[in-house]
Amino acid sequence: MEDIVIRYIEKPHLRNVIFIEGLPGVGNVGKLAVDHLIDEIKCKKFACIYSKYFPPQVLVKEDNLVHLVNNELYYWKSPKPDGNDLIFLCGDYQGLTPEGQYELSDRILREVMQYDIKQIITLGGYGHGEILKEPRVLGAANNKENLKMLKNIGVICSSDTPGSGIVGASGLLIGLGKLYGIKGLCLMGETSGYFVDPKSAKALLEKLTIILGIEVSYTELENKAKQIEEITRQLREMEKNKRTKTSSENLSYIG
Amino acid sequence: MEDIVIRYIEKPHLRNVIFIEGLPGVGNVGKLAVDHLIDEIKCKKFACIYSKYFPPQVLVKEDNLVHLVNNELYYWKSPKPDGNDLIFLCGDYQGLTPEGQYELSDRILREVMQYDIKQIITLGGYGHGEILKEPRVLGAANNKENLKMLKNIGVICSSDTPGSGIVGASGLLIGLGKLYGIKGLCLMGETSGYFVDPKSAKALLEKLTIILGIEVSYTELENKAKQIEEITRQLREMEKNKRTKTSSENLSYIG
Amino acid sequence: MEDIVIRYIEKPHLRNVIFIEGLPGVGNVGKLAVDHLIDEIKCKKFACIYSKYFPPQVLVKEDNLVHLVNNELYYWKSPKPDGNDLIFLCGDYQGLTPEGQYELSDRILREVMQYDIKQIITLGGYGHGEILKEPRVLGAANNKENLKMLKNIGVICSSDTPGSGIVGASGLLIGLGKLYGIKGLCLMGETSGYFVDPKSAKALLEKLTIILGIEVSYTELENKAKQIEEITRQLREMEKNKRTKTSSENLSYIG
Amino acid sequence: MEDIVIRYIEKPHLRNVIFIEGLPGVGNVGKLAVDHLIDEIKCKKFACIYSKYFPPQVLVKEDNLVHLVNNELYYWKSPKPDGNDLIFLCGDYQGLTPEGQYELSDRILREVMQYDIKQIITLGGYGHGEILKEPRVLGAANNKENLKMLKNIGVICSSDTPGSGIVGASGLLIGLGKLYGIKGLCLMGETSGYFVDPKSAKALLEKLTIILGIEVSYTELENKAKQIEEITRQLREMEKNKRTKTSSENLSYIG
Repeated sequence: MEDIVIRYIEKPHLRNVIFIEGLPGVGNVGKLAVDHLIDEIKCKKFACIYSKYFPPQVLVKEDNLVHLVNNELYYWKSPKPDGNDLIFLCGDYQGLTPEGQYELSDRILREVMQYDIKQIITLGGYGHGEILKEPRVLGAANNKENLKMLKNIGVICSSDTPGSGIVGASGLLIGLGKLYGIKGLCLMGETSGYFVDPKSAKALLEKLTIILGIEVSYTELENKAKQIEEITRQLREMEKNKRTKTSSENLSYIG
Repeated sequence: MEDIVIRYIEKPHLRNVIFIEGLPGVGNVGKLAVDHLIDEIKCKKFACIYSKYFPPQVLVKEDNLVHLVNNELYYWKSPKPDGNDLIFLCGDYQGLTPEGQYELSDRILREVMQYDIKQIITLGGYGHGEILKEPRVLGAANNKENLKMLKNIGVICSSDTPGSGIVGASGLLIGLGKLYGIKGLCLMGETSGYFVDPKSAKALLEKLTIILGIEVSYTELENKAKQIEEITRQLREMEKNKRTKTSSENLSYIG
Repeated sequence: MEDIVIRYIEKPHLRNVIFIEGLPGVGNVGKLAVDHLIDEIKCKKFACIYSKYFPPQVLVKEDNLVHLVNNELYYWKSPKPDGNDLIFLCGDYQGLTPEGQYELSDRILREVMQYDIKQIITLGGYGHGEILKEPRVLGAANNKENLKMLKNIGVICSSDTPGSGIVGASGLLIGLGKLYGIKGLCLMGETSGYFVDPKSAKALLEKLTIILGIEVSYTELENKAKQIEEITRQLREMEKNKRTKTSSENLSYIG
Repeated sequence: MEDIVIRYIEKPHLRNVIFIEGLPGVGNVGKLAVDHLIDEIKCKKFACIYSKYFPPQVLVKEDNLVHLVNNELYYWKSPKPDGNDLIFLCGDYQGLTPEGQYELSDRILREVMQYDIKQIITLGGYGHGEILKEPRVLGAANNKENLKMLKNIGVICSSDTPGSGIVGASGLLIGLGKLYGIKGLCLMGETSGYFVDPKSAKALLEKLTIILGIEVSYTELENKAKQIEEITRQLREMEKNKRTKTSSENLSYIG
């Protein structure tokens, strides 16, 4: 089979495009953010990407039908005549192997470069190891202009922060983008890394929407955040009870 | 070498073909079911599939001769003029790597698409983690028509059941089939996942034979099921004796 | 680079060739046997095989010079006008990955098929898990004629013995050989699997030389076997002393 | 994408070239040595090498900008009319997989062979397992002339020393170089293997500069060595305190 198969549902006409990636990763922050945005601003799916670099698997969807794991491209047309149209990359998985990651990022980038791509924005999580009350948004860019803009809107940019760099599609797309001469930046929401993190995704979207000049409701993300908080609260409770139980058992054993 | 080599013994003429896969997997349920069916309805081998995506290995067969690990295609011609002819995919192994899985499933699917394939049916096991008295049969499909039919014959279809989806050839063949416009469904027999499970294979065949409109004897599978039950019974016995022995040893040690 | 590079030192003229493989494997039995035979009957190296499927490594040889890890082909011309000439495959490593194993075995087989190959003989070890006083020689073949001959010279052939089949080059060469219509057999010396095993290699050669109709001295192999026995004896001693020491330490601690 | 992409900044004219590799490896000895030399003798970057065989990652650099992980080529022109010009290979990573290692080493070697390469020198560390006061420099070569020269300048060459050979780019470049008919040698600084080791890099450079007939200051490397020594001293201290603390805690618990 072809290593990567791209099936178009539609070939939209787009101008001044910002290409935004939000694939699964640390805390699923990027995925949650992009999936939320796609729902809120009502984007349209226009292409499906299948590949042997994805897991060999089908998923059973809400309608009980199976679909082969994939990545998808959505678009949104700006209502303003000089606004930025948007292309979103989202999906079930990233490539399984390093080589697959390169092949997928490069192919998808060259595919969307058929459009008039002005900017690449990749979204991800930055794993902190502990649960944070107020997740910050970290950033990096492949050019000075973007870096300055990020600092202006309160995104933390420092060469210390993401220690070993940015791994996966979020890194590759802006790294390869630089080779192709396209400006790119990455936004990373701080997250514990233990749970999917809608709170971090919200923090990240609050910065992204400033860049895009759009407004969205966060109700859905806030609801998801509450569910996650409730689940983690229950887990902590169970953990505590277990410990108490264990020590009382120990007592009864000693007594 | 070529990545995948297909050697034809014969090129049969077949009409209205249903393509049925039963390769090794969880509890070997799919493999047991297809191997049983091939024996019972007397299918004929018509092609061997060799590949570098299989383990680099020969197996020593009953006749003491070695053969390179492979997959095989069998056919069965319906005695009814308007019946469905059948093609079966069976074999020693599935592809070793995710990429190998894609390459093999895609190539085999395109190979059998030379025939007039009306339907793909893949067979597998669904690992439950515990031994079940009455294994149920779960199902999924790549189209609504098949889904409805499965529910009508008592197959359980729900998006909850196979959590992370259907992995391997059973998933890929119906997932890729959808891309090629071929209807497909998957039947999964519940199984503990610890042993090969002829009982689950029988439950699965009871549903499959309804779909195919054929009847077969289950004596062979029932005999195998009894053997497996006897083995697991002995293992439990040994486990119990071991524990008793250990505690009496402990006693003699303490005393 | 090319996946596999074959460099010829010489292109000998050979007739009625038996192709014999002895690459590293369980107990290095096959490698020891072939390396011994090459020395004893004074074979000549005629080709080197380099490949990205081998480890990315050079070895420092006796002359203090480095050489890239490889496989090598040697030949031996029979003094008898109607005798069998021999080609030997030996080397530092087998392919690292399953796919590499297939690519190497297939390419080497097709390369030596330029010659008039009458028979493939692969040599290996069969891991037993315990040290054996008198290692037996097990065999398998890809045709009935060879199987009969093996039984006649006291080689044990049974479909039970090598449980999961024959893995690696020893299996692939006779498995692929069958596809290309070349007769092949495999000899496996029983071995513990914990040490390199010159004793098992000798047992194996005693059968191989019957097949080839040649005679060789085993002095070198017997010397190596004594060295290995001495080493294992010392290791057992050390192990025993360690245990005795530990228990006396325990005593002093308790007292 | 192309498996390996080489982007030239400049195509310098060079004569009598010595090609010197110093990529990350054991103790980062080779990388430290080459990076130091590039700084000290003021080399000029002339090409960047990107590849899917590297990790799928960008790194955030001192200027806060991201760059795709890569290897780089630098050159230095000898001030003497008959001196050796130099090409250096340095970078963030070596290839991730064995096959990637072969592909990268072979491609880079063939790329620099556009120049008049007289000699390949690869630099690495030799892991010793313990911290050494006076790291020695070990060597190996693909030809007798180099071997003699190495011994003359006090480099230790013996087939015993680097047990399993030289792994990675340092081995492959001189191994493949031999196949292409280019003289090559490898220098390895002894190192514990637990820390980056500027002291070993200095020892290595003291030999390399003799071969190259150049002189450099080691102040920077000596400073780094002091920092590492300070860090390891603190770690030992912490370890000691931890043990003392643990035993006093035990006492308080017992008392």
